[in-house]
Amino acid sequence: MPVTDPRPVTEPRLDNLNVSECRRVGEVLARIGDKWTMQVIAELGEGSRRFNELQRAIQGVSQRMLTLTLKNLERDGLVSRTVTPSVPPRVDYALTDLGRSMLQPVRALGEWAAAHIPAMDAARRQYDGRETG
Amino acid sequence: MPVTDPRPVTEPRLDNLNVSECRRVGEVLARIGDKWTMQVIAELGEGSRRFNELQRAIQGVSQRMLTLTLKNLERDGLVSRTVTPSVPPRVDYALTDLGRSMLQPVRALGEWAAAHIPAMDAARRQYDGRETG
Repeated sequence: MPVTDPRPVTEPRLDNLNVSECRRVGEVLARIGDKWTMQVIAELGEGSRRFNELQRAIQGVSQRMLTLTLKNLERDGLVSRTVTPSVPPRVDYALTDLGRSMLQPVRALGEWAAAHIPAMDAARRQYDGRETG
Repeated sequence: MPVTDPRPVTEPRLDNLNVSECRRVGEVLARIGDKWTMQVIAELGEGSRRFNELQRAIQGVSQRMLTLTLKNLERDGLVSRTVTPSVPPRVDYALTDLGRSMLQPVRALGEWAAAHIPAMDAARRQYDGRETG
């Protein structure tokens, strides 16, 4: 359905962040918004990796979750999976051009997170204390 | 536990996107990564809003989901809730300074999304066709 938004834009720096665009941001975040996906993207940002290399690099990820994460990234066209028919077969994962194009905005959000997660955690503690106190 | 990563950084533009930082990005995305949250942040980016104004502006959101979304944002310190004890009471929601600081990186990801979601959708169609075909 069409989105109509006749309100004047009061803050020029937000002029591109309309409701339709935010819906799309929500879609993207819902797809990539978990810690394993982000870490796989970051790891592959340094170069192609084999499954076992990824599992060693990403502390705490299970084989099942890594398999699922890679499959979703491949499905979204962000990661490529290359099978070399050796014995045993060799499988390499790498960022596609599309996946690589996401590194810059993800990094910007990462820098925001690194700077502000402590403030969010403090706000949570205060809020939860107020609720139960 | 400490994260040690002795690999040389092969791409200078990724030098700040380490595994620990990506874990934090994942945390943030898990908190804000749904379409209602993004749309509330965008709407409040234009100024404070009352509950009914938000519900009218965000098409398709239920009263229950909007209440839950606002509560989570308030808990994370991103949105403030101001009650004016009139009859009936008036409740205004607004971005805090912390919430406002998130607009810029969210907008960057939004621009990436607006540009690349069609490519992700096309990749999905191709992938799913390959799986079932």
